[in-house]
Amino acid sequence: MRMYDLIMKKRNGAALTKEEIEFMVKGFTDGSIPDYQMSAMMMAVYFQGMTEEETLYLTLAMQHSGDVLDLTAISGIKVDKHSTGGVGDKTSLALAPMVAACGIKVAKMSGRGLGHTGGTIDKLESFPGFSTEISTEQFFENVEKNSIAIMGQTKDLAPADKKLYALRDVTATVDNMSLIASSIMSKKLAAGADAIVLDVKTGSGAFMKAEKDAFALAEEMVKIGKNAGKETIAVVSDMDQPLGEAVGNILEVKEAIATLNGNGPKDFETLCITLGSHMLVAGKAAENEEQAENMLREVIQNGKALEKLAQFVTSQGGDASYVYEPEKFEKAAIIEEITAPETGYVSAVNCEEIGNCSLVLGGGRETKESSIDLTVGLVLKKKRGDFVKKGEVMAQIYGNDRGKTDNAKERFLKAFRFSDKAPEQTAFIKGIVKV
Amino acid sequence: MRMYDLIMKKRNGAALTKEEIEFMVKGFTDGSIPDYQMSAMMMAVYFQGMTEEETLYLTLAMQHSGDVLDLTAISGIKVDKHSTGGVGDKTSLALAPMVAACGIKVAKMSGRGLGHTGGTIDKLESFPGFSTEISTEQFFENVEKNSIAIMGQTKDLAPADKKLYALRDVTATVDNMSLIASSIMSKKLAAGADAIVLDVKTGSGAFMKAEKDAFALAEEMVKIGKNAGKETIAVVSDMDQPLGEAVGNILEVKEAIATLNGNGPKDFETLCITLGSHMLVAGKAAENEEQAENMLREVIQNGKALEKLAQFVTSQGGDASYVYEPEKFEKAAIIEEITAPETGYVSAVNCEEIGNCSLVLGGGRETKESSIDLTVGLVLKKKRGDFVKKGEVMAQIYGNDRGKTDNAKERFLKAFRFSDKAPEQTAFIKGIVKV
Repeated sequence: MRMYDLIMKKRNGAALTKEEIEFMVKGFTDGSIPDYQMSAMMMAVYFQGMTEEETLYLTLAMQHSGDVLDLTAISGIKVDKHSTGGVGDKTSLALAPMVAACGIKVAKMSGRGLGHTGGTIDKLESFPGFSTEISTEQFFENVEKNSIAIMGQTKDLAPADKKLYALRDVTATVDNMSLIASSIMSKKLAAGADAIVLDVKTGSGAFMKAEKDAFALAEEMVKIGKNAGKETIAVVSDMDQPLGEAVGNILEVKEAIATLNGNGPKDFETLCITLGSHMLVAGKAAENEEQAENMLREVIQNGKALEKLAQFVTSQGGDASYVYEPEKFEKAAIIEEITAPETGYVSAVNCEEIGNCSLVLGGGRETKESSIDLTVGLVLKKKRGDFVKKGEVMAQIYGNDRGKTDNAKERFLKAFRFSDKAPEQTAFIKGIVKV
Repeated sequence: MRMYDLIMKKRNGAALTKEEIEFMVKGFTDGSIPDYQMSAMMMAVYFQGMTEEETLYLTLAMQHSGDVLDLTAISGIKVDKHSTGGVGDKTSLALAPMVAACGIKVAKMSGRGLGHTGGTIDKLESFPGFSTEISTEQFFENVEKNSIAIMGQTKDLAPADKKLYALRDVTATVDNMSLIASSIMSKKLAAGADAIVLDVKTGSGAFMKAEKDAFALAEEMVKIGKNAGKETIAVVSDMDQPLGEAVGNILEVKEAIATLNGNGPKDFETLCITLGSHMLVAGKAAENEEQAENMLREVIQNGKALEKLAQFVTSQGGDASYVYEPEKFEKAAIIEEITAPETGYVSAVNCEEIGNCSLVLGGGRETKESSIDLTVGLVLKKKRGDFVKKGEVMAQIYGNDRGKTDNAKERFLKAFRFSDKAPEQTAFIKGIVKV
């Protein structure tokens, strides 16, 4: 088999076989197939697409290119959740304790990413002492005992995907549904879960700006999951403005705690309940979504979800007193208000630009080596559809550097559009995709 | 400027600017743009194409990526010829002395290629002592004095093209008209001629199998030439069977000599006269093609063309007695006849397979390091449209190895199709492309 022939075959519009895709992924991973052939192949895929079968084969080949976690030692159905990412996305922080409190086993292996804020691990490290550097034994023990544990990524999960994504990223071959879906799903499948609930975002702050693209990606991923024999459900939700109110690491942790106390922003709570109810049903902890929703609301009301967070933080070395006294979290040096420059309805928000404000403040990583300032960020007081008077508070900004704070303030205001008329109402949950 | 953005732009169907193409070619040549980005770009070009302007800019950028020969020291209009290649293509051997005898300056810099037989230099080395390793001064002096000289490629002509072609060759991005045309034309323009006559082949032994593709390529190249300010004419001719009768180095040299004696195969003579007449007109040695044709036939009849070949061979150290006594050329050890397996009309010839027979016999290079056997090859006695009786001689085969010769014989016969009816007559010269 020669990679040249496979490129030619795909270029000419034919579908590759399972063996051909396995040959390609194996060769690319071990370096026997050079980058320049793989990038030509990726561009051919961009133009010719991949069939449902090809997409599955690619996913499975990438899944098996490195370690595949074996979670069978943990009893019950392991349900994993994955978000396609957005601004103010602190979902795991609240959702994981909620579903764990309802009996679902949360066994997550996480990495640190680039973005407007840190990842889940960075945010959890806001709790003094908290660490994800736990042994595999400790990890399994914690999951079995507390239903929840997160460990730093020690295993070499889907290295083919890592290498391929890096190549696609510099050759303008990222935006193809089959490739995006197989990239995400190969990692999820390697992480060993029995069922997967996908949190797919759409709008100006999401990877998929257009709703139809978000649904297409959701469908592509759900099909892969099903074809790989794992129950997979996708929830498509709005990311045309930040999720909830807080954007920034500690600010988001506080918002997650507030949500577990029943005082969270409506949209964020809705997302957690929606994703959680599908996780509970997939994990057979509930018979249907309605029952699951009641269970989730119950663990918020009776404090079990908050307790689960505290237990989780404690079990990984963190100071759980912060869960109950979030005012103890470190604060930024500069806390100021951003006021409305005019009177009117907030008609649109450039969500990605709000994320960039957090990055400008120092809340995210621009490169892998960047350090993160956990205290900085923004808390929005007005969102789309709200009426504001000139001079009224739009948001609170948290910074540690005068220049950066001023820069972020300026960019923040430019991200808003005002109008005399209230904008049309749009649904927060756009739809659910199952097979 | 970033290569990533250029790939994205081309991928999305936009045309690149002159500056963008120059940036790309320069960066690729100096290594600052990696192969994996260039191969993705080439695949995007395969799907999106290039405009006439882009094709010109690419050609010029590649032309100027290395040395550009300056032939201005040679008086008169320098006319170059280029063939897209085929089986039995010994055209330069006869054509160069013919046009030189009519006063056109032939100043060629040649390399050795891969193929079914050697290149022009390999064939000329059949004359004992002949060498293309002459100094630049000697080269210019010979052209000025004799109107003809060929030197080995000492200059670094169009290195960008060389590097790009090698990359396209392993990434299934060769077959795009703009890329093929710019590759050929960049080298021709770097070789410094004032006018270019292109010998474009079509059929089973040509790079362009389909006639419409051959015309498309011819038009693409003629447009580049015109846009680059050089008079350019393309002759599209048949390569559905070998050109002339001889395939193999010394056998082709002998056929070229026969042609200069007025005893060449009809198709080959026609091609030389046609290409030559356009060269004479482009070089202003004749006023029109008719006059040019008469001049060319004249130098054959009066022996001036043969004399020119002898003068050329002598001036580069070769033994010109072979020009007058071609029976002196070394002969293969095995010379046998291949006879017809059945009675009927030769209805089709797999021309490329005849070329492969020469390669199997040892007459061509499979890799750059292969040595060439100048004595082996085939002389066809029957071609398309001829009626043959079972057992009648189809060809003579020249080999030096029993096994290889038997292998070639077997393949040779499989390359022929026979029929009860005479096949339709097709034109040898398919057309002329000018702007």
